[in-house]
Amino acid sequence: MAKTNTAPPSGTRDFLPLEVLRRKYVVEIVESVYQSYGFEPLETPTMERIDTLLGKYGEEGDQLIFRVMKRGVKLQRTLKSDPSENALADAGLRYDLTVPLARVASEYQQRLPRIFKRYQIQPVYRADRPAKGRFREFFQCDLDVVGSDSSVVESEVLDAAAQVLQLLGFSKPGDFSIRLNHRGILKGILQTAGVDLSLEESALVAIDKLDKTGLEGVRDELRDRKIPDTAAEALLDLLATIPSGNSAVLDWLQALLTKSEDGLQGIAELRTILLYVSGGPSKKHIKIDPYLARGLSYYTGPIFEVDFLEQGSSGGGGGRYDDLIGMFLGRRVPACGFSLGLERIILTMEERGLFPERIAGQPQVMVTQFSEDTISASLDLARTLRAGGLRVDLYPEPGKYGRQFKYADQRKIRYVTLLSSHEMEAGVVSVKDLQSGTQEVLQPDQVTAWLREKLTAHAD
Amino acid sequence: MAKTNTAPPSGTRDFLPLEVLRRKYVVEIVESVYQSYGFEPLETPTMERIDTLLGKYGEEGDQLIFRVMKRGVKLQRTLKSDPSENALADAGLRYDLTVPLARVASEYQQRLPRIFKRYQIQPVYRADRPAKGRFREFFQCDLDVVGSDSSVVESEVLDAAAQVLQLLGFSKPGDFSIRLNHRGILKGILQTAGVDLSLEESALVAIDKLDKTGLEGVRDELRDRKIPDTAAEALLDLLATIPSGNSAVLDWLQALLTKSEDGLQGIAELRTILLYVSGGPSKKHIKIDPYLARGLSYYTGPIFEVDFLEQGSSGGGGGRYDDLIGMFLGRRVPACGFSLGLERIILTMEERGLFPERIAGQPQVMVTQFSEDTISASLDLARTLRAGGLRVDLYPEPGKYGRQFKYADQRKIRYVTLLSSHEMEAGVVSVKDLQSGTQEVLQPDQVTAWLREKLTAHAD
Repeated sequence: MAKTNTAPPSGTRDFLPLEVLRRKYVVEIVESVYQSYGFEPLETPTMERIDTLLGKYGEEGDQLIFRVMKRGVKLQRTLKSDPSENALADAGLRYDLTVPLARVASEYQQRLPRIFKRYQIQPVYRADRPAKGRFREFFQCDLDVVGSDSSVVESEVLDAAAQVLQLLGFSKPGDFSIRLNHRGILKGILQTAGVDLSLEESALVAIDKLDKTGLEGVRDELRDRKIPDTAAEALLDLLATIPSGNSAVLDWLQALLTKSEDGLQGIAELRTILLYVSGGPSKKHIKIDPYLARGLSYYTGPIFEVDFLEQGSSGGGGGRYDDLIGMFLGRRVPACGFSLGLERIILTMEERGLFPERIAGQPQVMVTQFSEDTISASLDLARTLRAGGLRVDLYPEPGKYGRQFKYADQRKIRYVTLLSSHEMEAGVVSVKDLQSGTQEVLQPDQVTAWLREKLTAHAD
Repeated sequence: MAKTNTAPPSGTRDFLPLEVLRRKYVVEIVESVYQSYGFEPLETPTMERIDTLLGKYGEEGDQLIFRVMKRGVKLQRTLKSDPSENALADAGLRYDLTVPLARVASEYQQRLPRIFKRYQIQPVYRADRPAKGRFREFFQCDLDVVGSDSSVVESEVLDAAAQVLQLLGFSKPGDFSIRLNHRGILKGILQTAGVDLSLEESALVAIDKLDKTGLEGVRDELRDRKIPDTAAEALLDLLATIPSGNSAVLDWLQALLTKSEDGLQGIAELRTILLYVSGGPSKKHIKIDPYLARGLSYYTGPIFEVDFLEQGSSGGGGGRYDDLIGMFLGRRVPACGFSLGLERIILTMEERGLFPERIAGQPQVMVTQFSEDTISASLDLARTLRAGGLRVDLYPEPGKYGRQFKYADQRKIRYVTLLSSHEMEAGVVSVKDLQSGTQEVLQPDQVTAWLREKLTAHAD
């Protein structure tokens, strides 16, 4: 047999036990916070009808959809009649979690509550060129409120996001910031600088790069995008003169955008949001940033983005998008959401050492096997320890202790029990600490308590 | 816009909140038990290389694989040169969890412990014709020990499976049974009845149907499969004379299979397993069943199957399969596993009412909104309740109480807090029980404790 390539497909990953457990650790914190804010989970199929997906993510997006081929007779028929990319596929892999939410909002409108607060944590699939940190299968973690216009929604979404990050270990005010802006303010700034309405989207993309490329980079980008020089310079002047401090920024904007209804509306909404979060966990992280643009053109109100200290490292983002969720319903449905950058957050937690040394789920103790004659006694001991709430690995075969210790070590199990015929005769159990090398002789009914105490002391 | 079909693709499902939470409830119990037995989680990509999948599941299986199309230039080239089903695809969706395990065992052999105890709970995909209870995307939940020949493995796998079912509510001995057999015993029985070795697999498929079709059905099946009449009748005579009780069955087999080395080996192994589980949770459910065949030809030793009381309703099954996991390594690797029938178990739990009335994760209380002026106070109250560990939904907009109560009711939230300007002036909070209609006036610092007590009383 030719050697098969057993690596996972390009751009995808196998998650070995420790990686799964670390991901679970994060996801459990995310879920507990989101649930405490009244959100409920949704899960949708990996495959969507190809018609559900096509045309929703722009031309480039369409090219990045993994297409699933028709089968059987239908496939044979299509191979004869129209062997083309679109005709041969009848399904595609989930590309994001927003289109599925829109589909669900339409399909189950009678069953869902008037205001639908859902979170969804599932992998999505994009046929992108794989690169460091860019995968073809990766997790998205979305939180959305569908059905309410209230600024309470934004404040709760911001608070929930901040609380997740704090509980994950980003607990100091400087560990992350949440930049907050409003589409109306951006519109007002562009109008004030004299950028033509037709060039608005294009100018936004240029401004969005300010934190990556600086003022000079934005100037080049504006030129490339054919924004007239006068307007571009006016815009750059504005960007250069933003004061610091949230109140100061809002006052500055208020004075600047007197003629822009959208701008004033945006300022008012941000003031309301700041008021609503004033007692909440996001408060000290929020930084009003009038040049935060977020590339996606579907935002209609407040927009926000979580940034870690490192430049260009985003922990997630979101905003209000009132025209998207109704795509299958054929009417406007207000919505506001936040997508947590799960992959980036896990990476940053690893860099900053924020994972506990031992993660819940790993075995805490291993029961060794001495000989064929002691197997039943070892099984009983394992059962007793499990009944005491411990995670217990039982080595399946009698054999040299050295080999068993090595296996325990490989699995990062610190404590092993020894139950030889000698110990059985004496009516005791030995417990060895593989880290210190010390060994303790205990009465059988003491082992659980002894281990629990040690494990607690090591925060296990 | 033409009305889009917003149903999930045929054979797949959307899981709305309560369904996700119920599934989580089951999975969390499964994971906690599996972890307590020293197993660790593995996750593999949704897509596998098409070469990894093809030829592993028989001809019929190959036809049921969802194929993912090549993209871009590669696709265009293939459309010109060889527009055929196999050439157009470069990946396929995960068909089971065993082939990925074999791939992982090969790819990471240096990093994995010598004995790899893993569980894996992920959806798999089969292009089967959808039917009641048969889906194209469904969850498998596999537990496997790779790398040990010891019967301790079987006993721990059986105990873990039984303990999961007991904790899920199948707690009485009669709620489920675990039928246990051995490939060697089946082989011995076939030899004793005079079935030719070349017809062994075929005869096994016939026997496997005994519990569905009865002796007459097996007789027909054996005839259809060209098993000579003498052998078939000898086989049927044996099947009809099996005594009851595990010891009696094993003694009967011992007397019957004196000339079959495989048979005697199988009997000895089952005796060892029974000895090892004698103190464990599976003991009282195990029923030695010499005609349990399990269709899959890859089993090499003990085989077992969980049955609920209803005929033909399997809660999972497994066994020892020593020749499969090494498929990519090119050598024999001992392995034994159990696949829990997650979908069937959830269905059976629903039928028997085994889910708690309220599932963890749902919001426990809703904070209403009275007017624009009380929003900040309501936000503060929600924060206080959350800090007290409650799952709190905050209604996002002020509005008629009736409408807010209706929403709470829809979300199955029993308790709502009321904080009007009247209550604010009096420095109190009212809490309404939507089920009884009663209302309590409380000091703000009493609300959390009051709710906690009520929720505990209702086991929430």
